[in-house]
Amino acid sequence: MTSLPEKRHTLAHLLAAAVQERYPNAKPTIGPAIDNGFYYDFDFAGGLESEKAPGEDDLASLEETMRELLPTWTEMSGVEISEKDARARFAGNPYKLELIDEIVTKGESMTLYTAGDFSDLCRGGHSERPAHDIPADSFTLDRIAGAYWRGDEKNAQLTRIYGLAFDTKAKLEAYKAQREEAEKRDHKKLGRDLDLFIIDEKVGRGLPMWTPKGTAVKFELENFTRELERKYGYEHVSTPYLGGEELYRTSGHLEHYANNMYAPIDMDGDKFYLRPMACPHHIRMYQRKPWSYRELPVRYAEICDYNRYEKSGELMGMIRVRKFQLTDGHLFVTPEGLKEEFKNVCRMIVEGMKGLGLLDIVTYRFSKRDPSNKEKYYPDDELWNTAEAMMKEALDELGFSYIEALDEAAFYGPKLDVQAQNVNGKEDTLFTAQIDFLLPQKFDIEYIDSDGKKKRPVMIHRSTIGSLERIFGFLIEHYAGAFPTWLAPVQVRIVPVSEKQVAYGAEILTALRAANIRADIDDANESMGKKIRNAKTEKIPYVLVVGDKEIEEQTVSVESRDKGKLEPVAISNFIGLIQTEIRERA
Amino acid sequence: MTSLPEKRHTLAHLLAAAVQERYPNAKPTIGPAIDNGFYYDFDFAGGLESEKAPGEDDLASLEETMRELLPTWTEMSGVEISEKDARARFAGNPYKLELIDEIVTKGESMTLYTAGDFSDLCRGGHSERPAHDIPADSFTLDRIAGAYWRGDEKNAQLTRIYGLAFDTKAKLEAYKAQREEAEKRDHKKLGRDLDLFIIDEKVGRGLPMWTPKGTAVKFELENFTRELERKYGYEHVSTPYLGGEELYRTSGHLEHYANNMYAPIDMDGDKFYLRPMACPHHIRMYQRKPWSYRELPVRYAEICDYNRYEKSGELMGMIRVRKFQLTDGHLFVTPEGLKEEFKNVCRMIVEGMKGLGLLDIVTYRFSKRDPSNKEKYYPDDELWNTAEAMMKEALDELGFSYIEALDEAAFYGPKLDVQAQNVNGKEDTLFTAQIDFLLPQKFDIEYIDSDGKKKRPVMIHRSTIGSLERIFGFLIEHYAGAFPTWLAPVQVRIVPVSEKQVAYGAEILTALRAANIRADIDDANESMGKKIRNAKTEKIPYVLVVGDKEIEEQTVSVESRDKGKLEPVAISNFIGLIQTEIRERA
Repeated sequence: MTSLPEKRHTLAHLLAAAVQERYPNAKPTIGPAIDNGFYYDFDFAGGLESEKAPGEDDLASLEETMRELLPTWTEMSGVEISEKDARARFAGNPYKLELIDEIVTKGESMTLYTAGDFSDLCRGGHSERPAHDIPADSFTLDRIAGAYWRGDEKNAQLTRIYGLAFDTKAKLEAYKAQREEAEKRDHKKLGRDLDLFIIDEKVGRGLPMWTPKGTAVKFELENFTRELERKYGYEHVSTPYLGGEELYRTSGHLEHYANNMYAPIDMDGDKFYLRPMACPHHIRMYQRKPWSYRELPVRYAEICDYNRYEKSGELMGMIRVRKFQLTDGHLFVTPEGLKEEFKNVCRMIVEGMKGLGLLDIVTYRFSKRDPSNKEKYYPDDELWNTAEAMMKEALDELGFSYIEALDEAAFYGPKLDVQAQNVNGKEDTLFTAQIDFLLPQKFDIEYIDSDGKKKRPVMIHRSTIGSLERIFGFLIEHYAGAFPTWLAPVQVRIVPVSEKQVAYGAEILTALRAANIRADIDDANESMGKKIRNAKTEKIPYVLVVGDKEIEEQTVSVESRDKGKLEPVAISNFIGLIQTEIRERA
Repeated sequence: MTSLPEKRHTLAHLLAAAVQERYPNAKPTIGPAIDNGFYYDFDFAGGLESEKAPGEDDLASLEETMRELLPTWTEMSGVEISEKDARARFAGNPYKLELIDEIVTKGESMTLYTAGDFSDLCRGGHSERPAHDIPADSFTLDRIAGAYWRGDEKNAQLTRIYGLAFDTKAKLEAYKAQREEAEKRDHKKLGRDLDLFIIDEKVGRGLPMWTPKGTAVKFELENFTRELERKYGYEHVSTPYLGGEELYRTSGHLEHYANNMYAPIDMDGDKFYLRPMACPHHIRMYQRKPWSYRELPVRYAEICDYNRYEKSGELMGMIRVRKFQLTDGHLFVTPEGLKEEFKNVCRMIVEGMKGLGLLDIVTYRFSKRDPSNKEKYYPDDELWNTAEAMMKEALDELGFSYIEALDEAAFYGPKLDVQAQNVNGKEDTLFTAQIDFLLPQKFDIEYIDSDGKKKRPVMIHRSTIGSLERIFGFLIEHYAGAFPTWLAPVQVRIVPVSEKQVAYGAEILTALRAANIRADIDDANESMGKKIRNAKTEKIPYVLVVGDKEIEEQTVSVESRDKGKLEPVAISNFIGLIQTEIRERA
């Protein structure tokens, strides 16, 4: 059977054949199969005026040409050819000649693959009977992009034509529908369209800025986090994003984590790092005074500034950034209290994900060490066995459903990863909870036990809802920008029917704002229909329409984004209803 | 008339004379007049066992010896002496010999000053009739410290004896009382004693960490700031503490402000600065879309992370740090709207200072350029004249009382400095409001005016309550740690009379916390008196005492820090009262 990558590779040839037919002077270069389809790079520079590089508009007719050729491609096969023959055949194509040079230098043999009237220098991996194997409606040309020969911007610029291809038309359509939905939900696009955040080239790549609307969401996420933390007995602290060298020397970050850190900063002879993690800060906070076993667990929480070295090419919207704020926390626990406290951490994670409405996209991964991979893990079998057994017990007692992942633990201990699937179907780690016996040793952390002796606490590193940036990205995509009311940047839009009702609208606005509801008024000189459509585009949960009737009856007509048109109500009643919805984070 | 510095210098000699009498083998080195008194450094190393260096306990009797000698110092005068005589006289004192070497090298003459039986090598500047000029009760020995010869730690360690001296006993007593009060209020001491913040050597100098109690105050200050900003029409944004090089190139910070900035950080080829100011970030935020004159003023507020290069020696508690959070904001205003908006900024400053209870320690300084100091200021006479005239009008119309300070403006515009006096009587700038015509030019900022043409807005840079760190330092000192209830880290302490009432106390605790009141319970095995004293030491606004009578009557007995013992009330009534006090920030 012909595999999907083979079909895709064959279609790349077919695309080149179609281009050759329509643009005889275009020079084909290379064309591989890729995820979801294929591409082929061409040099159109040598063509006549009538053969200038195709644009997106030309894709449909190129695709038609491919479909016309396909039935003639009854078979496809390769033959070995000599260097001389190859050079003669591709004499006018410097790209192919360069490839031939390379193959010759490596001492490899050369093959020429032919189907219909089209031959190409190729390593193979195609359908042997394209006309039979490939349904004519299972592929489509997708888009055009610029590309440099061999990806090097010093080389000639080529035109890359992308195609999508699947085994069947149904699968192609399904992919296109899914992609369209993902594009609609893409947090980078929605972030721009809904004016939630911007990434400004001058401020810097990987350094998003939260606009007023985004910041409204951010403050809600912060409040949500801190309320949850208070409920679970955490104390809030505030520590700087810089830390002295000794901290990260002691913690081992400089030894094991330096690749993710920025170079140190000199401050009048002192050497500071932009912190990659805040554990050392919270440890020094704990160590400011002696502790009794009666006071443990000590739980410190902070929305911490973190900095991670990321390559420019790996940055992605709010999901992968160079500076972020983790809803962070560190717990200092007696060994006897560890299991119960870890269970509390798990309960809190569930409550947090539930509160944000993400419970259905979240899964749990219990990441363990691989005992045979000695170098990767802190060497203490007993600690590992104890910690992993304890974590498993805790998860099982709570009835957590999780997968176990070997060789995915942190250097110093096992962890629970909270995984979430994004709109593209890819799984990402939202955040983790880790048990740590090592840093307490390295920093020599203590408490006084009931027998009056000094003992070593265990640490738990955990996050409440992950980084504000990443969770925001996930929330945007999950809700396609239509946030629940409590999170919505604008909760209520007031739409006066005409200029006459603007004053009444302004009164309502004042009443809403006095009740801490994020509201605005659309008093632009537009039709009511247009204004309501705008509010829908902005995904505002409630639109209050006010006309003469509403003024007379001292009410507002409510259009709910999620529940449609509601009965007119007195403004005080509306405020009561929305306040309840917000307070309950419904 | 003998000046106070002359008297102080004379007393340094008198101290040396007393030491000489009591410790004949001690070697006097140098002893100048200083602020508030004098000191003298001695080498006690060569003495007999009975002459080992004095401790704080010996100061009283040394002071007595000074008082005994003083009446014999009826006159004090100097004579020039030859190098040879000098060397002979100080043959056993290597420090004096080193001084003699220096004087000889410089080719200066040498003088010997004598009073009573004591002579010292000295440049002069004394009282000529010490016994007459200096009241015996106008000075006191203060403390002892280590000091290196000539301040170089490679040299011998000496013993420095400090004295205080004023013109009269009354002035000496007044100074001591003021100093004692200042020491009690010192924010570094109270920060430690009340566990509000710590500066940990390993985390780094100039990088304070807010403890749970300090963070409670910080969150209140943040809420206070943001509420005030919302009231005045600001939108909140959130921007990173890093910024690309071009930002600070364009803004001129790299040209004019680089001394206060840290070296840039490389991020995969991009160059970033720890930002010293956030104006460029807020400008790029404004520039993300076009603006109409109808939408101005645009007001962005943010509690911004700032970084300033500070020498280790200049760091001071929370007041001078290397990383701080400024309650920052930038306004984009039409030229026509500038005066009114600047007045709003001034009104907001007054409201903020009043809300924090600091109005009585705050003064205002209108900082103008010196037109003759051309290099220090952005060269555009018209802009300066317009801005300064406008600011003066605004301040006068508001009835502000202020002082004008020539040559204190910012590079790019005049400013209003909000000054506060600290407990040591020194004045410090809490924060400023500045008018800026320059950055709008440099960044080419625009809005569309009513005539459809592009116009340039004016910027106002302003803070709401200054940096959280500095204002916290001032608040600690101003209130001597006894914060008003809304700011207090712990607002209510519950003290059960005995173990029997702990359960009832816990119920009350739950009720208080459910009402968002910061409360705790002291269930330690201590006397009630001790517990109440502890609460007073911690400056907790309310102590609720619960005994059998309170359980029976379902009340609490309230001890107010500021109002003394109150009538017993039902807990719900107490909650109502304290909630009102907190909400009104009374």
